[in-house]
Amino acid sequence: MRTIDAMRSYSSTLRQSGKTIAFVPTMGFLHEGHLSLMKKGRELADRVVVSIFVNPTQFGPSEDLAAYPRDEARDLEMVEATGVDAVFIPDAKQMYPEGFQTTISLKALPAHLCGLSRPGHFEGVATVVAKLLGIVRPHLAIFGEKDYQQLLVVRQMVRDLELNVDIIGAPIVREADGLAMSSRNMYLADDQRKAACSLYQALTESKKRVKAGEISADTIIASAEALIQAHPDTRIDYIAVCDPKTLDAVTAIDGPVLMAIAVKVGRARLIDNMILTPGT
Amino acid sequence: MRTIDAMRSYSSTLRQSGKTIAFVPTMGFLHEGHLSLMKKGRELADRVVVSIFVNPTQFGPSEDLAAYPRDEARDLEMVEATGVDAVFIPDAKQMYPEGFQTTISLKALPAHLCGLSRPGHFEGVATVVAKLLGIVRPHLAIFGEKDYQQLLVVRQMVRDLELNVDIIGAPIVREADGLAMSSRNMYLADDQRKAACSLYQALTESKKRVKAGEISADTIIASAEALIQAHPDTRIDYIAVCDPKTLDAVTAIDGPVLMAIAVKVGRARLIDNMILTPGT
Repeated sequence: MRTIDAMRSYSSTLRQSGKTIAFVPTMGFLHEGHLSLMKKGRELADRVVVSIFVNPTQFGPSEDLAAYPRDEARDLEMVEATGVDAVFIPDAKQMYPEGFQTTISLKALPAHLCGLSRPGHFEGVATVVAKLLGIVRPHLAIFGEKDYQQLLVVRQMVRDLELNVDIIGAPIVREADGLAMSSRNMYLADDQRKAACSLYQALTESKKRVKAGEISADTIIASAEALIQAHPDTRIDYIAVCDPKTLDAVTAIDGPVLMAIAVKVGRARLIDNMILTPGT
Repeated sequence: MRTIDAMRSYSSTLRQSGKTIAFVPTMGFLHEGHLSLMKKGRELADRVVVSIFVNPTQFGPSEDLAAYPRDEARDLEMVEATGVDAVFIPDAKQMYPEGFQTTISLKALPAHLCGLSRPGHFEGVATVVAKLLGIVRPHLAIFGEKDYQQLLVVRQMVRDLELNVDIIGAPIVREADGLAMSSRNMYLADDQRKAACSLYQALTESKKRVKAGEISADTIIASAEALIQAHPDTRIDYIAVCDPKTLDAVTAIDGPVLMAIAVKVGRARLIDNMILTPGT
């Protein structure tokens, strides 16, 4: 479906017949991570709707909006093979018609991690997700935990505005070498792949050390930094150890914490995260 | 109903049985203006739900939040006598629990009229209305045209975020002397009443002059200003002649325009407006 009206009436018909709808919003260029969300949707609801929309308002002026990879034909094949019931592909003119002027912003959650290096990003995300939820009207919507901060932002917005939808998180899907799946991995040249894997290595190493008794966030962060910087062509945006609910920085690890990393490898900005739990 | 859960389940039951819901959000201290909205709701839907919530986030720090008039017992009597089906009276703790952090803002419409003298006001309005719509889930919601800018803001937000509800405007209800009904009229001392009526007089006088051929907005505004300032104890906030859709200022009146006035009379900030249409 390429129009808001078509999507609305599809959803309306399903709801009237008592069917539940799971929704997976994407920016396309799908990978196994996305497919895992769709499969989860199939388990949890009668119908699965996927949207493909490269949302311009969540990209900064110096970011990769124009270069963001697109391959609709391939996406549609993958979606069909995964048993998705409907795909919603609006264009930007429909989503942001003349006169459009509304923005949803959050106060606390975006003031951490990616929100700091991508000003306006989470406003763009919150606004487009609210709008997509209004059009698709799903019973539940599924987001990957790779974009952990995004998951928290969407969940908080849905709660604050009473948007009547369950927000479900789904685990990160990784390549065989540990690299978290991402559409942006296609930016990686062959010789950058090892550097890209250093995010996962830093996370698993940190997890082990915390399990073994390390409680200093600073120590954990410093080791991870060294591990990543040992690779050429890496520029660390942030390495953070924080509260998994508020994203506030943690100094002494005395309970489960979120470790989150953002690194530019060549032109690919990669993110990854893991929950670290102290040993008992 | 005093809890979000109770309101939700009431609304959910109605929707499941195929009933349509009209919603009238208010800040209480009801008057005939509010009742006209409820009556309109009765005409347009199977059930009418009214909310009473003095929303703190739409008051500025120097405004009249604490003093805002409240009389719940009287409100409930009036609502019952008007045939309303349910009243939702949440407290601020439920509406804004710990961790609440989401704001809806609009770019263009609030940059006019009351938005200029009440910074943050329309963010508060847009956010609370979105939240109330999410809780009550009405098929339509009715707003008075006295708060003309509010009506435009809500309508635009609902369109931009696809909130799936019809926003209906209803005409201003006036006292016998022309004063637009408002909960804030109770702030007026007896000797301020004449000054308060000058808003209506300025509007009707302007309407006549435009009908008779006056096309200069400046001339219309200057006369209205003189008429209002002739009364003691009046402080004009704004007198504007503008496009009824965008609220952009108009200089030559060559089609229907909105004339909007805000004046402080004593401690009461009063607003009023009228559409002026050139004679043919």
